[in-house]
Order: sequence, then structure tokens, then C-alpha cells
Amino acid sequence: MAAAADKKSVLDPWGATVVDDYNHLYEEFGIQKFDDLCSKVPNPNMYMRRGVIFGHRDFDRVLETMKQGDDFAVMSGIKPTGEFHLGTLMTAKEIIYFQQQGAQAFYSIADIEAYEDNRLSFDETEKIAVGNVADLLALGFDPKRGHIYRQYKELRVRDLAVHFGAGVTLATMKAIYGERHIGLYLSALIQAGDILLPQLKDFGGPKPTVVPVGVDQDAHLRLTRDLANKFRRKFKFIAPSSTYHKILKGLDGSPKMSKRNPMSYFTLNETPKAIGKKIACAFTGGRATVDEQKKLGGVPEICPIYEIEMCHFVEDDNDVVETYKCCKCGSLLCGEHKARTKQIVMKFVEEHQRKREKLVDQAREILGVN
Amino acid sequence: MAAAADKKSVLDPWGATVVDDYNHLYEEFGIQKFDDLCSKVPNPNMYMRRGVIFGHRDFDRVLETMKQGDDFAVMSGIKPTGEFHLGTLMTAKEIIYFQQQGAQAFYSIADIEAYEDNRLSFDETEKIAVGNVADLLALGFDPKRGHIYRQYKELRVRDLAVHFGAGVTLATMKAIYGERHIGLYLSALIQAGDILLPQLKDFGGPKPTVVPVGVDQDAHLRLTRDLANKFRRKFKFIAPSSTYHKILKGLDGSPKMSKRNPMSYFTLNETPKAIGKKIACAFTGGRATVDEQKKLGGVPEICPIYEIEMCHFVEDDNDVVETYKCCKCGSLLCGEHKARTKQIVMKFVEEHQRKREKLVDQAREILGVN
Repeated sequence: MAAAADKKSVLDPWGATVVDDYNHLYEEFGIQKFDDLCSKVPNPNMYMRRGVIFGHRDFDRVLETMKQGDDFAVMSGIKPTGEFHLGTLMTAKEIIYFQQQGAQAFYSIADIEAYEDNRLSFDETEKIAVGNVADLLALGFDPKRGHIYRQYKELRVRDLAVHFGAGVTLATMKAIYGERHIGLYLSALIQAGDILLPQLKDFGGPKPTVVPVGVDQDAHLRLTRDLANKFRRKFKFIAPSSTYHKILKGLDGSPKMSKRNPMSYFTLNETPKAIGKKIACAFTGGRATVDEQKKLGGVPEICPIYEIEMCHFVEDDNDVVETYKCCKCGSLLCGEHKARTKQIVMKFVEEHQRKREKLVDQAREILGVN
Repeated sequence: MAAAADKKSVLDPWGATVVDDYNHLYEEFGIQKFDDLCSKVPNPNMYMRRGVIFGHRDFDRVLETMKQGDDFAVMSGIKPTGEFHLGTLMTAKEIIYFQQQGAQAFYSIADIEAYEDNRLSFDETEKIAVGNVADLLALGFDPKRGHIYRQYKELRVRDLAVHFGAGVTLATMKAIYGERHIGLYLSALIQAGDILLPQLKDFGGPKPTVVPVGVDQDAHLRLTRDLANKFRRKFKFIAPSSTYHKILKGLDGSPKMSKRNPMSYFTLNETPKAIGKKIACAFTGGRATVDEQKKLGGVPEICPIYEIEMCHFVEDDNDVVETYKCCKCGSLLCGEHKARTKQIVMKFVEEHQRKREKLVDQAREILGVN
């Protein structure tokens, strides 16, 4: 892996995010490359600039609307099975970005999915959701220009799911999701309801909508775009657009962050100290010995420390380029890099937790929780 | 067919309703024979006495509760795709019977099923439902001791369906309903919600419940009994009981009444004259010639005229026995029999329509329709 990475251009600090494995998504599923559009986005966010958002479906339509200053919406959400982690953080920041660009913003607490997929009761997910919404607000989501809701309580979403039921054959469901229990198919219809909710009359009617998600969520988009077509006559839906970000590697070097593996990720509500420790213990793109690293340079392309910095914690592109160069040429060693990243992350988390604490009551109010 | 019927005992006026084809239901699906219980019912209705209700699941439990004067419920409903006909009439009268025996009565307007199965919009079914409920009230349903509701508007039913989704595999759905579109599976979960609604806290909690239905609805009972078991811990459900009535033959001699075949059935809202005409044109169990019939007697076992009289329009068992005997011995000819039945049916329908007209406003109110 290190050898393959070495072949890349020395000055491709975003290359780490473009995993070769994503190539088949373009061909097999018809996901379009984001590269081709990025330069046309007036004020691209760092995920766009750095190739973390690598693919899309029909994002052109949303871009056109943004440029013309017309109404558009951003829609995504969270499955309330636990605290915010770097994946849900990314989605949240993407939504907030589009909200700041003028979009009506929708944030769904996918409690029906959490129930059908993870058997979490609505009482359990309600508690978790309060924390998730406090996180979202702390990150800058403006609730006055957005709609945050629980699927179980948002009857308009559930009504759409009932409508969509008549439009989906079993063969389609199996082709998209495989052989699953019925509840999971039901929750897929609910998610189609989420995605098309912004286009109901109550929210100003049909409009381009962008759904920023991890690429693992593309199945829902395929289903929903199909349903938007099938129910176009009744609801005048415009097929929703999407952007896809990559899935972050595990801190421990595993292919993805996973709850099953506590050292592979952290949540925004762990103590800064615990998070610092996980960073200190992380896998890196370093060489076997310091000497070797000084001579050959590190491999940021496979390094989770570089990745989380680049994807989340360093705003200025020049700083990231600088880090990349210093790692590549062997002047930045892993110990130093980890120590620096630890400081940045711990500072972010401390501030975030302070803001979040003050927003819990507002989160309860938004969700109608006593 | 006539020859086979001839083999039956001359004095089996209820024999016509016990179709041999139903025998496999006992073996294959585990439906229990109602015969064995009928004598234990304190005040059996005419469907019970005459073998029109031929099967059940766990009706013993309801019977025991009735005898002890404990709480129990009766639950059934209608798919609002058209006016009341003799099949929906039978279900309605069964519900009213149990209500009069002390049951809490629940009547579901299965508008989600009508949408998923027949693509009728909720606006369309709302109009139809008003008429259906007016019919139900005209037949004697007491709304003060009953709950009449539309599935789409009864969130408790839909909440149950969401819960049940996690308990049903695709394999189970396919085994019960075959390969169908997802909406139909969804509507099956909704129907399980209907059947278990009476056991929610809002209605006094778990209780024996009888679901009187046509035997073609047994699939829903099998699914629901399975779900009642699976969710027993959470909801304390008692598995619902059911009774099964047979499906009436078509007036034109076809195996069942069907909308596709307007001469095979009538609705309670056709003009009495039109209904009279359908009866006059009906198939009978008569012989080729009057002479032959006088000599051999008629075959009431295959006669839809005899069947609708016996199942709906003649209250006194002795009168039915008398008709049966006279037909068998050749003294009652088909013309005379039809003329008499026509009078009885037209009189019933006229009276029913008069009552119903006055109840439409109340029906609108119950359904919350403006």
C-alpha cells in the first residue's frame, strides 16, 4: 500500500481521499465525478476543494439554482444510535454549509431506521436525538431557517412512505437492499419520504434538493430518485440531487471507523483526554524507524492522522499542503504530527462541548421532548 | 355438481354452506371447526347456527370471556373500494352481534389497503367510507360503544405497523402473501395494527379479541397471531381469535360474487328495482323443466337464491327449513321462490336505504369529514 501511494505525484495532498476503490462507483452505479463540477461552485467548502466529496448525482441542477438565487433545499440526517462522530460531523457540516449558501435545511432524526435496523426503542433514540441536535446547533445549524424532526413524529414523511409503497416492487427492493426484513424496507420508504419532504407544499413546493451523504447511503438515493419519477405526476417532484463524501479510515488503521472497534473512532462527547489518547495510539503512515522516515518521508495517503486533519480540523488549504509536504519529505515525524493534531482536536472538542451544553434545552424544545 | 349435492342428507338445510373445498383449510392451515363450539355459544347468531361460520382460531378464549362477563373486543373492517354488498354486510352484522353481546367494537376503514392494493387515493376512499359507515350505523352499530376509524388517520395503528416491521422477515411475508409489491406488505403490517389496536392501553389494555372475517382474510390473522407472540413482552398482547364465514356464491352461478361481474352481486345502494331484476335473472338450483323439478325436487345446495335467503334475509330457522324442504320435494318452484325472495330483499333494502340516508351526517362526523 505504501509503495502504491509512493507512486503518486508528490504534490497531491488531496490524493489520499480518492481511493481507487471508488472508481467502480462511477461505472457500476452511475455516480458522477465531482471533480468536473468543483471549479464551478462559487464558494466551495473544504470537502469539495479537497476531493473528500468525490461524487454526485445531478448536482449541476442544484448548482444552477444556487447561482440563479432560486429556492433550493439541503436534506440529510442522522440515525440516532449514538453520539456524533467524525462521519455524522461531516454530514452536519455539509448541511450547514448549504444552509449558509441559502438553502432551506432539513435534518431528519432517522429513529424509524434506528428501530428497524438496530432495534432501538423510540424512548431510547429520543434521548440520543437530543444530544445529536445539540451537536448540530453547536456546529452552527440555524433552526430558524431549518426543519429538524424525528421520522416517527413527522407524519408528512410517513404519509409519503405510504404513498411510495404502491410504487415499489419486491424485486426492486431486493435489487437495492438485498434480502432484508420488512421493517428495513419500510424504513427505506420512510427515508425516501425524508428526501422528498422539502418538496411538499408545506415547504414551498417542488425544488432542487441536495442530499449530502456518505457514499454508503447511495442506495436510498437510487430508490428515491426512482420514486420521484414515479410520483412526479401527483407531487411534481424534481429528482433529488446528491453529493457523496468518502468514508473515513479507522484511527487504528482499519478500513473504516466502526463502533465495534472503539479505538478506530471517537465521538464528540468523549472527554478530550480520552480522545487525545486515541490519537496518540493511532496508526500512521510512518516508516519502521525514524531514520528511515527521515530518508524516505512518510506516507500521508494512508495516514488517518493526516486524514482527520485534512477532512475536519485544518481550515486553511495552505496549512494542509504544508503538512503534506513536510510529511512527504521526512521533516515532519509522526510523534510531532500526532502531538499537534491532538492539540487541535482537543481544543475543538473542548469548545464544541462548551457550546453544546448550552444548547441541550433548545434541542429538547425543537424535538418536543420534556 | 347437482348429482353430488343430491347425495347429501335430505334434511340438511345448512349443508349448502359447507363446501367440501373448505376441508383442506382445517388440515393445511390449522383452522378449527366451528361446529364443535357452536352449541356452547349462549346466544348464537344465524351464521353460527347455520354453518355459515364454519371455522375459527382460538374462539374458545373469547367464548370463555363472554361467559364470565369479562372485557373482550370485536374487530373487523372494510376496504373502502365501493358500496356495501352482501359480503361486507355479513362482517358488519357479525361485529354488531358481538357488540350486542358486550364486546368493545372496532371497525377499521382499510384505506391504506385500498390505496396499496387498488390505488384509490385517500380523497376517493374518504367519500366511499362515509357511505360505508352510514351503512354500518343503519345496521345497528352503536358508535358510543365502538371505535370507527380510517387507517390513514389512526396513528396508533400506523405506529404498531412500524413496530411490527422489525418482527417480520421477507421469507415470512412471501410465504403468507406471495411475491407482492412493498406497499402490500406494508398494508399487511397496518392490518396487524388494526387487529391489535383494541389491546392498547388507550382501550383498556390486553383482552381477548375476535375478528370475524371471510376465510380469504385468514392470512392477516396468521401474520397477526405470530406478531402478537413476538411482541408479547412489550405489549402483553393476547393472540387474537377469529371466526371465518364462507364466501357467498355469485347470483349468476359463478363461484363468488365479484365486482368484475355486475350480475353476480348487488350493493345495498342500488335501486330496489335493479336488485329485484338481478334476483329475477339469477341462477338457481332448479331442474331443466317444471315437470322434472316437480318430480325430482330442486337443489338448494347449489342455489344462490336459497343461499342469500339463508345467509341474510330470513331470521327464523324454521322458515329456512321449510323453504329447504319445499324446494327439495318439488313443491316450491324457482319462479315462486325468486318472486318471494325479491320481495323480502327489496323490502329490506328500501328500509335500509331510508335509515341510512338519515345517518350520513353522523358518519361524516365520526370520520371527521367536512
